[in-house]
Amino acid sequence: MGVNEERSTDEVAIRAMLERWARAVRARDYPAILAGHAPELRMFDVPPPIESKGLDEYRRTWDLFFSTSKDPVVFDFDDMEITASADVAFVTARMHCEPTEAGKRARLDFRLTVGLRKDPGGWVITHEHHSIPAT
Amino acid sequence: MGVNEERSTDEVAIRAMLERWARAVRARDYPAILAGHAPELRMFDVPPPIESKGLDEYRRTWDLFFSTSKDPVVFDFDDMEITASADVAFVTARMHCEPTEAGKRARLDFRLTVGLRKDPGGWVITHEHHSIPAT
Repeated sequence: MGVNEERSTDEVAIRAMLERWARAVRARDYPAILAGHAPELRMFDVPPPIESKGLDEYRRTWDLFFSTSKDPVVFDFDDMEITASADVAFVTARMHCEPTEAGKRARLDFRLTVGLRKDPGGWVITHEHHSIPAT
Repeated sequence: MGVNEERSTDEVAIRAMLERWARAVRARDYPAILAGHAPELRMFDVPPPIESKGLDEYRRTWDLFFSTSKDPVVFDFDDMEITASADVAFVTARMHCEPTEAGKRARLDFRLTVGLRKDPGGWVITHEHHSIPAT
């Protein structure tokens, strides 16, 4: 397989992985949400804290998210750009969710950057950065 | 050179590049700020807009930053973690600056993720994501 085809295979794998992850969020399925993440994950989330490290802290960011999300949970990609080599990749995306505040459900557009490395078992996520512009 | 030594060389090059970039920001030196950036740069910045594309829009994010920054400009790394392959890399960091609002200068801690690819001429930045937690 040539370099371009390999790269394209990696991009397909990463896109499928992130789409599975978003689907797991919509299903409130914690094991599937965490399935592709490295133990040393570094997370920069929309709400405080300023940083979360490791899977226990990462899981807590989803507790917070789900506490403000009514069913059906919305967590959808609007676009996704993947830059991948054979063993390091990053992804930039625009996404939206629909948190409920004071009884009112409203669309929230946000930005996502994901960092990945390839282990012998496949791609793992080592970094997520979710944010909205500061007001 | 072995793979580990090559990787380490790339990490050293990327760290030096980002430190030059931060120094250029502190000097309000636009050509040096933009020197390492790809034409297709995708920028997610602290203030709106939600996204900036390309070097003209990237330059405008610095106009806004400098309009709220008095000399000496503060723009410093608190830590930096680099994940690099031979031709794709990403960097996560905590930084701080000192914007002046209503005549008052105050420290602002923020998160930074940078995405890079290696061109024949060396590493170029194709993505920056700066943010603070939403309040």
